[in-house]
Amino acid sequence: MNKTIAMIITIIFLFLPSSWINSKESESKMINNGMIVRISEIDVYPQFLDKYLAFAKEVAQDSVIKEDGVISIYPMQVLEDSTQIRILEIYKNEQSYKNHIASAHFKKYKEGTLQMVKQLKLVDTKEISPENLKRIFKKANE
Amino acid sequence: MNKTIAMIITIIFLFLPSSWINSKESESKMINNGMIVRISEIDVYPQFLDKYLAFAKEVAQDSVIKEDGVISIYPMQVLEDSTQIRILEIYKNEQSYKNHIASAHFKKYKEGTLQMVKQLKLVDTKEISPENLKRIFKKANE
Repeated sequence: MNKTIAMIITIIFLFLPSSWINSKESESKMINNGMIVRISEIDVYPQFLDKYLAFAKEVAQDSVIKEDGVISIYPMQVLEDSTQIRILEIYKNEQSYKNHIASAHFKKYKEGTLQMVKQLKLVDTKEISPENLKRIFKKANE
Repeated sequence: MNKTIAMIITIIFLFLPSSWINSKESESKMINNGMIVRISEIDVYPQFLDKYLAFAKEVAQDSVIKEDGVISIYPMQVLEDSTQIRILEIYKNEQSYKNHIASAHFKKYKEGTLQMVKQLKLVDTKEISPENLKRIFKKANE
């Protein structure tokens, strides 16, 4: 009887971690249909602002034009404090993001702006209305 | 001679304010090609979160479907703190925004969620790469 209980407990412990991992994996695939949807919040040193903006514009355009997996890199400058940058980033999936940070244009941006950035915060999010993404993106082209 | 100087000063003072106003007007029309581009940051009381999300989803979809001037209402939930909401809002122009806040669906959302919202911050921004808006919006539909 004790042996049976011990065996059951062992089996539970053997299987639990893998089921946890699987449920986490499928959960992360469920969110945003597998896309990464992020707002990057960047605080730029004022003396480098113009140079930073040029880098940000270039990497945004290069990435969206050259990379299939980059759905959005849409950088914005906060009106009340122009040194505060926000970027809406949408990647098709994890692999697209990995390809992006390995790209020549991203490396140029990252290395070129390293000294210009005071603080960087990556705010990962979950879409509340996935149906709306295609609608709004269609409307911007009308 | 003194009269001439006084006259010149008077003329300067008469013309300065109107030129200021004009330059401010044209400046605000220059930004974002006249669009309003905003990230709304909303802090929701945890006990109302599910109800709030339903309201947010409904108003986002209604607005984009029914209103020509609403280019984007794209609500996101911060993964690290699900009570933190971010919305990318893009309106075609000032009038589109006025029409939006006068609409039945916006009023339903606003009145329905008034008690659910702890804090609301409207972060108005300026696009850094206006060329990218149409590109990213096109890509989301591929």
